[in-house]
Amino acid sequence: MRQRNLSLVLHAVAAHGPLSRADVAVRIGLTRAAVSTLVDELTRAGLLVELGRTRPGTVGRPGTALALSDSGPAGLGAEIGVDFLAVCAVDLRGRVRVRAEVAAVNRDSDPGPVLARLTALVRRVAAQARQENLRPSGLAVAVPGLVARGSTTVVRAPNLGWEGVDVGPALPEELPAVAVDNEANLGALAELWVGGRPGDFVHVSAEIGIGAAVVVDGSLLRGAHGFAGELGHVPVHPDGRPCPCGGRGCLEQYAGEEAVLRAVGMTAGQGIPALRQRAADGDVAVRRALRGAGAALGTALTGVVHLLDPRAIVLGGALAELSPWLLPAAERELGRRIARPYGELAVSRLGADGPLLGAAHSVVQGVLDDPIGRTAAPA
Amino acid sequence: MRQRNLSLVLHAVAAHGPLSRADVAVRIGLTRAAVSTLVDELTRAGLLVELGRTRPGTVGRPGTALALSDSGPAGLGAEIGVDFLAVCAVDLRGRVRVRAEVAAVNRDSDPGPVLARLTALVRRVAAQARQENLRPSGLAVAVPGLVARGSTTVVRAPNLGWEGVDVGPALPEELPAVAVDNEANLGALAELWVGGRPGDFVHVSAEIGIGAAVVVDGSLLRGAHGFAGELGHVPVHPDGRPCPCGGRGCLEQYAGEEAVLRAVGMTAGQGIPALRQRAADGDVAVRRALRGAGAALGTALTGVVHLLDPRAIVLGGALAELSPWLLPAAERELGRRIARPYGELAVSRLGADGPLLGAAHSVVQGVLDDPIGRTAAPA
Repeated sequence: MRQRNLSLVLHAVAAHGPLSRADVAVRIGLTRAAVSTLVDELTRAGLLVELGRTRPGTVGRPGTALALSDSGPAGLGAEIGVDFLAVCAVDLRGRVRVRAEVAAVNRDSDPGPVLARLTALVRRVAAQARQENLRPSGLAVAVPGLVARGSTTVVRAPNLGWEGVDVGPALPEELPAVAVDNEANLGALAELWVGGRPGDFVHVSAEIGIGAAVVVDGSLLRGAHGFAGELGHVPVHPDGRPCPCGGRGCLEQYAGEEAVLRAVGMTAGQGIPALRQRAADGDVAVRRALRGAGAALGTALTGVVHLLDPRAIVLGGALAELSPWLLPAAERELGRRIARPYGELAVSRLGADGPLLGAAHSVVQGVLDDPIGRTAAPA
Repeated sequence: MRQRNLSLVLHAVAAHGPLSRADVAVRIGLTRAAVSTLVDELTRAGLLVELGRTRPGTVGRPGTALALSDSGPAGLGAEIGVDFLAVCAVDLRGRVRVRAEVAAVNRDSDPGPVLARLTALVRRVAAQARQENLRPSGLAVAVPGLVARGSTTVVRAPNLGWEGVDVGPALPEELPAVAVDNEANLGALAELWVGGRPGDFVHVSAEIGIGAAVVVDGSLLRGAHGFAGELGHVPVHPDGRPCPCGGRGCLEQYAGEEAVLRAVGMTAGQGIPALRQRAADGDVAVRRALRGAGAALGTALTGVVHLLDPRAIVLGGALAELSPWLLPAAERELGRRIARPYGELAVSRLGADGPLLGAAHSVVQGVLDDPIGRTAAPA
């Protein structure tokens, strides 16, 4: 009960702070005295700080405004991309305090060296975070593949060439908590926590492959095995191109990065930035290929609309970067296939950093949910 | 709070009864005295009955075993089919006590006469229920179409030819509560409440059209507009046959009743029973058509598995009746498209009556959830 109340105080300050003790008491329905005890404990633990007196004019006698600490626990987020590794540290206030990214060639890679490199990068960011008086209290890693529910095992990441890889043991053992999740899931959570998106939407992202995450009532729909959201393998041409997943005619074969690059004679290594540049420069073939990809996406999203009727479909990651050319074709396809009202097709404002931010924020949310458990570990 | 506790008592007896007062107290975490007060109120209201002394050998002093009343409130369920109307009354114990069904020609119909006929049938069943000492406390109507969330308006039921029809005002005004819902939704709820299915599955049903309902954590996923679960309009051949919904290549055009009948030269009026008979008799063309329908269903379900990763996909309604010929083809299609673990493809044990039972049970659930509100109305 005490733990639940500590969490309620933190969440109230996170959502509405700075707040006085009296304001917190009103918001969470506890007495001023009870809140003061909780606040004292959270202040001692370095989770809350006092900002000084609140302004006159607020209701009741002036109190000290409370805010989440910007020198307390921090969440570390990491992302294993096909051609990069990235790590960041986010403080309790949600600000990115340290960020590091290195180019990499992770396609069809041996997991060992990739994870060793990631671990070194995590340690570097953690050390920098400590120099800023932050205490890394956990790490979440975004991967472009399926992760078994509640585990750190990458069941299948076709573009990395990984299958059945338990990532957990290779990550820094000194961190109190380590989690691994699909990049689309974490991108969706970033949309929810950082992007302020109301809690019923489908988040579509791409990083070579195409993934999605379904958010229902503010929670991720993970599925029986943790594999929900695999939009890239929804069949759009049932007798079409074979896909490495074992299927045929999957969306990824028509709207994935590789499919688009192949269609315009570019190589897999050139990637999204080159595609975007050419499209921006008016390259007719690239624009046509992106229109085709957008139409295929629209076909798959037609199924999503009919099955889930989401409030919004949000394009994130690489899809957000290519949205000026993808979105109109996807919208046209939805419009010509669906004759009833449906949710908006929107572009994420978080860009390609969504999964990385979602990973770091998932650790921060863990601290807010369970402030004692997460801060018990030594700094 | 009192209302919540009354509901807790009823749900405990519904799920685990017959129970003594002491057993109820243990299950819901209230004192024996508090439970006795609640039980007295529920007994006076005719919701609970005492069955006599519990057997010796149970823990504590012997008490009176409590059960839900079989002569108290009843739920009325109705279904508007394309070629039938059905109504039933279910008591608090979940037993069907009255059932009536009439053949009808509701395709492309004028709603007025259909609803007048339904209302007469509802009144007949309600009168019979009263003769059995039941008190009809509400009506839920299953329709083969989209119903606007939280309303009694059928937005679109293509096979009835109805669009924007508010069914509510035409239904018996003497009933305390009237609700309207999509037949696939109600079929799914029957699967959950009557079929004992654990709470994460997709229920697919057919009655001319093909609908589905997505159940997540024991709740229906309704969608932003209430239109979730429209599996019949997931594109399976994106450039395929036009569909009355405005789309193209929708599943319904390949696996719907009409499509199958058309493929074997039968007329729309002959319906599922004739199809089933011919398939059972070994008609090669019918079996081939059903295999084709099953394969198209498997293609659409591939998308469902990738997006939602349900614990199970349950075929109900007409699909259950045709399952001996549809299921193998659908399973083969899923197997050749999906190379990872996925939930079982199962057949509903409720048969074609699922939506009707779900409708009646939704009223019973309403009584269990809100015993005071629902029984305040005069018998």
